[in-house]
Amino acid sequence: MSHLKSRYHQVRQRSEKLCEPLTIEDYLPQPADFGSPPKWNLAHVSWFFEELVLKPYQKGYKPFNDDFGFLFNSYYNTLGDRTLRTSRGDLTRPGVDEVYRYRRYVDEKMDELLSGELTDEEKDTIILGLNHEQQHQELMITDMKYMFSLNPLHPVYEKSFNLLAGKNKESGWVDIKEGVYEIGHTGDGFCYDNELGRHKTYLHDAQISKALVTNGEFLEFIEAGGYENFKYWLDEGWSWVSANGVKHPLYWKNLDGSWHQFTLAGLKKLDPDAILGHINFYEADAFARWKGMRLPTEFEWEAAADKFDWGERWEWTNSAYLPYPGFTTVEGPAGEYNGKFMVNQMVLRGASVATSEGHARKTYRNFFHPPLQWQYSGVRLARSI
Amino acid sequence: MSHLKSRYHQVRQRSEKLCEPLTIEDYLPQPADFGSPPKWNLAHVSWFFEELVLKPYQKGYKPFNDDFGFLFNSYYNTLGDRTLRTSRGDLTRPGVDEVYRYRRYVDEKMDELLSGELTDEEKDTIILGLNHEQQHQELMITDMKYMFSLNPLHPVYEKSFNLLAGKNKESGWVDIKEGVYEIGHTGDGFCYDNELGRHKTYLHDAQISKALVTNGEFLEFIEAGGYENFKYWLDEGWSWVSANGVKHPLYWKNLDGSWHQFTLAGLKKLDPDAILGHINFYEADAFARWKGMRLPTEFEWEAAADKFDWGERWEWTNSAYLPYPGFTTVEGPAGEYNGKFMVNQMVLRGASVATSEGHARKTYRNFFHPPLQWQYSGVRLARSI
Amino acid sequence: MSHLKSRYHQVRQRSEKLCEPLTIEDYLPQPADFGSPPKWNLAHVSWFFEELVLKPYQKGYKPFNDDFGFLFNSYYNTLGDRTLRTSRGDLTRPGVDEVYRYRRYVDEKMDELLSGELTDEEKDTIILGLNHEQQHQELMITDMKYMFSLNPLHPVYEKSFNLLAGKNKESGWVDIKEGVYEIGHTGDGFCYDNELGRHKTYLHDAQISKALVTNGEFLEFIEAGGYENFKYWLDEGWSWVSANGVKHPLYWKNLDGSWHQFTLAGLKKLDPDAILGHINFYEADAFARWKGMRLPTEFEWEAAADKFDWGERWEWTNSAYLPYPGFTTVEGPAGEYNGKFMVNQMVLRGASVATSEGHARKTYRNFFHPPLQWQYSGVRLARSI
Amino acid sequence: MSHLKSRYHQVRQRSEKLCEPLTIEDYLPQPADFGSPPKWNLAHVSWFFEELVLKPYQKGYKPFNDDFGFLFNSYYNTLGDRTLRTSRGDLTRPGVDEVYRYRRYVDEKMDELLSGELTDEEKDTIILGLNHEQQHQELMITDMKYMFSLNPLHPVYEKSFNLLAGKNKESGWVDIKEGVYEIGHTGDGFCYDNELGRHKTYLHDAQISKALVTNGEFLEFIEAGGYENFKYWLDEGWSWVSANGVKHPLYWKNLDGSWHQFTLAGLKKLDPDAILGHINFYEADAFARWKGMRLPTEFEWEAAADKFDWGERWEWTNSAYLPYPGFTTVEGPAGEYNGKFMVNQMVLRGASVATSEGHARKTYRNFFHPPLQWQYSGVRLARSI
Repeated sequence: MSHLKSRYHQVRQRSEKLCEPLTIEDYLPQPADFGSPPKWNLAHVSWFFEELVLKPYQKGYKPFNDDFGFLFNSYYNTLGDRTLRTSRGDLTRPGVDEVYRYRRYVDEKMDELLSGELTDEEKDTIILGLNHEQQHQELMITDMKYMFSLNPLHPVYEKSFNLLAGKNKESGWVDIKEGVYEIGHTGDGFCYDNELGRHKTYLHDAQISKALVTNGEFLEFIEAGGYENFKYWLDEGWSWVSANGVKHPLYWKNLDGSWHQFTLAGLKKLDPDAILGHINFYEADAFARWKGMRLPTEFEWEAAADKFDWGERWEWTNSAYLPYPGFTTVEGPAGEYNGKFMVNQMVLRGASVATSEGHARKTYRNFFHPPLQWQYSGVRLARSI
Repeated sequence: MSHLKSRYHQVRQRSEKLCEPLTIEDYLPQPADFGSPPKWNLAHVSWFFEELVLKPYQKGYKPFNDDFGFLFNSYYNTLGDRTLRTSRGDLTRPGVDEVYRYRRYVDEKMDELLSGELTDEEKDTIILGLNHEQQHQELMITDMKYMFSLNPLHPVYEKSFNLLAGKNKESGWVDIKEGVYEIGHTGDGFCYDNELGRHKTYLHDAQISKALVTNGEFLEFIEAGGYENFKYWLDEGWSWVSANGVKHPLYWKNLDGSWHQFTLAGLKKLDPDAILGHINFYEADAFARWKGMRLPTEFEWEAAADKFDWGERWEWTNSAYLPYPGFTTVEGPAGEYNGKFMVNQMVLRGASVATSEGHARKTYRNFFHPPLQWQYSGVRLARSI
Repeated sequence: MSHLKSRYHQVRQRSEKLCEPLTIEDYLPQPADFGSPPKWNLAHVSWFFEELVLKPYQKGYKPFNDDFGFLFNSYYNTLGDRTLRTSRGDLTRPGVDEVYRYRRYVDEKMDELLSGELTDEEKDTIILGLNHEQQHQELMITDMKYMFSLNPLHPVYEKSFNLLAGKNKESGWVDIKEGVYEIGHTGDGFCYDNELGRHKTYLHDAQISKALVTNGEFLEFIEAGGYENFKYWLDEGWSWVSANGVKHPLYWKNLDGSWHQFTLAGLKKLDPDAILGHINFYEADAFARWKGMRLPTEFEWEAAADKFDWGERWEWTNSAYLPYPGFTTVEGPAGEYNGKFMVNQMVLRGASVATSEGHARKTYRNFFHPPLQWQYSGVRLARSI
Repeated sequence: MSHLKSRYHQVRQRSEKLCEPLTIEDYLPQPADFGSPPKWNLAHVSWFFEELVLKPYQKGYKPFNDDFGFLFNSYYNTLGDRTLRTSRGDLTRPGVDEVYRYRRYVDEKMDELLSGELTDEEKDTIILGLNHEQQHQELMITDMKYMFSLNPLHPVYEKSFNLLAGKNKESGWVDIKEGVYEIGHTGDGFCYDNELGRHKTYLHDAQISKALVTNGEFLEFIEAGGYENFKYWLDEGWSWVSANGVKHPLYWKNLDGSWHQFTLAGLKKLDPDAILGHINFYEADAFARWKGMRLPTEFEWEAAADKFDWGERWEWTNSAYLPYPGFTTVEGPAGEYNGKFMVNQMVLRGASVATSEGHARKTYRNFFHPPLQWQYSGVRLARSI
């Protein structure tokens, strides 16, 4: 079996493995418009292979169901109409079984394709599809966590599925020396278009922490009145805190004076030494100000990434999500993958405990809107010197 | 088996019968805040027996699950906190199986209670619970229809479940003679507290139509520009039409010049001779004005109800939902059943094809907010003479 | 000078008299969409004479400014497009001076018309215009009060303009005996179309209070936790209280433990013996329930109105605003005056200290939406016996 | 008279000069929450001198009115509570006269201060206050234009106040050569804290247009269906276009097939050769994509600014508003001036016809949210090579 075919199987199986602890009911809800139901996620990643690989490259391919092109499109205007992003949780048909049949059908056809000769373009698109599915695997985890967290019964997804971050293995600071650095992806491996255009950037003297911020450190911020003092917050952040009466991170709960956090393994006592997560940009930025420091830029992060541990938490940077010099998009749906989101979002670097194996690299640029908290996102401090 | 026990079984079975065509997925969504998921409805009606019958009257009753008191409360403030009305579709646990186990448990305990001696108060509360469940049966039908209607695949609930109204059997007018009439429930049978307080009202000469308005008649209104001319509409109705760009009733679809309507049996060609349904108060009122007539009051309706056929469509009246003279509410949760909704709603009289058997009577007062269309609601014309 | 002409002058002058304490700035703002700026009110009542009297009845009438037909239309769809109801406060041109010139122009032309022979239709429309202007005089007072109340400086409109209600002159109860009563306007005097159709109604034994509820009585409700206990509130009322965190009536302020109320004569200590005002329907209804009583219907009120004092506060009834039997509207703009608002509003009876002289009568039907508090609205209790 | 004193007078007079064409009514409205009323602007800039200069530096200074500290605070949390940003248009008192008296009072006290010895800190704060007032002068112009534009009568602010941009004086491209460039303010002159921290940045080969985009060029975009084709738009931009049904720039009107634009000198025929303005970031970005180019970064712009004409239109860049390396804020209210807005806004470079004399410099960083159109903002194209 070719490497690509075996990787295809591995990635596809991982999506289904993630759904094993689910009841049929769990597959359906979409409790917030930033998330999607597991059923939709499972179908949408298959739709991606159907639309971008099988339809263009498999001769005489017959779609599993003509309506699915419409039902499981996420945001690709190129590929026609789509259902409203916010009503995915209301579509009970096709059911979960049918979605699995859809996956089987796509897998079978993909197997045929993968057994033959593939052009480079075909291979690249398949690899894009696998990376796309891995991204959705991570979203499935975070969306399920969010959905379960709303249930007053605190359901357990899987007792042994421990996505609590561990402790920092190192402390101290990495020095970044003033000078010109090369940024962006290089080499043969897969990357997204937004990482391309390896280019030079000029950095100034700075330091970046080897350790990520822990729960205990953030607790100090709370106890010092951090959520009540405007001066640590960006103006938008302060509005967010005030309008929502925020007093602590998402998933934290104070029960009879003792801090807990909701996890996919159930409600757990908060471990002060463990790495902090589910922080939005405003909270990350406010914490850094309170410490008299700042968030690193994505360029500082990438330049120093070989000198510290990363991979437990996506790390907010103080860089806006913008194109690299010379950034271009391809024609067609793949061109809608990244470029059209390059406004009003902030870059996160690293990866998280929810990231699929083989999906992390130091040039990876993740991005979310500043108020969003439902990712496994944390804080690494930096300071100019 | 006592009559009450056998009625209990019959009503309870009907709720589950209605769910037979559903997939597990169908039990979950709540696509609009005026509706509820089937799973929630099934559990809530059992909760009603648990809270209002078993807990107070069954010695040593142990609740099936202490959390359900909170999860399945609808709007009874007397009975403590409850989940947000709008997030019922996000709660996947307890699952459908567990809800059926809950029903089995409640049924078993109710069976024990029903096998013993019952006080009149106990009987009355059980009968209230059965009527409550019948109301929710009707809501389940209308909520399921609404949910399926949003699916671009037009799912079929049940091919043979034909809730299309038939044709009028009569035409012409019933005369209502000026004078004093008695209004409100009388006799030994069950009724809600809002029907009580039989009292006199004074009516003036008027006529009320023997027939309900048909699809074809409403089509004439559409074709005459009824939705485009402010002068037929109440000010609020005109705002509703303008803000939502309404051009036809809910569930009507014009496909290539031919009118269809979505039904629980699938998408069907519109039958112009069949009785119109799914009309809100604004539409009913505008249609009547366009005809140079008006809607009847609920008192006219009740006074003449023996002289025309009714029961296919809930019929909008021009009466606001207000207390009858001397209306009082009982202490405790049953007192929250009706009285607290007596503002900003309009009364509907009659019953519909979705109403459970034995649940209709001519003094029944149904009530909804003027913009709501998802009930099997129709129009009967009246005129002063 | 004819009686009508002299009445015309008197009414028109009263509008301007009311604006004497205003600065130019005060004429402009529209702080809530239920109110209108004084400048707009002054112009709109003149527009009414221009559109409904001068244009149709004055041969060769040349409008003061062709754009005003558009700018100062309130809600008459018959008369063409109009500016958005909510943006009246943004239109600085025409200015206050120009609006007074407009009034002068209209007055001059009306004088000419009033000096000639008038048909009955012409007279009736002019009288309608005068009543219309009187209605807007009352709105001007309540809108100005609302606008000033938002200013943290507590501006004084006019020190001697005392609209605080006095004390009740009577106490005890009026008996209403069961039987048929005649309701609706009779006689030659002016009335609105919604009062017409004198008709019979059947009332049941009841009592209605001779006194209106006082500030002190309402304070007892507050101190008894009335705003914190759902059981006194209609469901919608409880949502209103909860969503807005309401703890006391509009315009009440507790300063260092002492209750004050904002008035057009400045911030005043609350007089517990004075009659309560600025209560919305939900508050009126909740207070009555707390007392174990209810609000009267508009029919009870009218039947008993000769036996108690009224006129200080518009009094909420428990009657929805609906047409009387045989109600019809005239063709044209005057037909839009009342009828199209007959849904989702409650009737108030009586009059208030802000009502213009000669504008009150016992058949008068005022109506507002249940949440509105900015009128001089109070509570008279009733009870069935 | 010292240079600073004479500059103080000059700047202060300019604010009042701008208000000369206004009626009293024009001073009041706040038609959108992104703008402020002229009266508020006039008072707020004086409040700035009172709070940041007179209170701390003038011994024994007595505030003009203690309430003004509260009424005319814009967004300085350090300085205490403030009125709601969105209700400025509802405060009629203090009136326009009183605000001018406030200005006189502040000017008098400032004159005294400016006649004595000043420390460097005092001078710096006064200069900051003058720049602050100049910023508000520009906002006054754009806010007034927006307010007048909503009036269906198209009021003329001042016939001779011609803020229409002229034509481009040059065409062709400026080359930017790859290498390290110095960015940020240098020298003794005034600048804001966000321009400080002169630092190196690395640029890649690119070209930037000498000319700004004209009305005629943008018209081609419209005629080519630019507003109807998703592929030119950022995802957020496309949502903005779709939700608002945008078809052309703000202030453009097509009257009988002929394009006009609303200006402070009245409604004018659109000049295709004149420079385009009132474009938001989404429109600027979409236009550039349609041309197959892009917007410059703020660094490219600054590096090349000596080689092209600028100053007619603020120019959108593709740089997010973020801190320069080593950016710090001072303690106290001046520290809230810029830093707390550094998220979700885009940088504009240059200046506009509405910018006050002496207020422009090539390191100036203006910033607005991407959807805002009410500034004199235009488009300069760039391209990587």
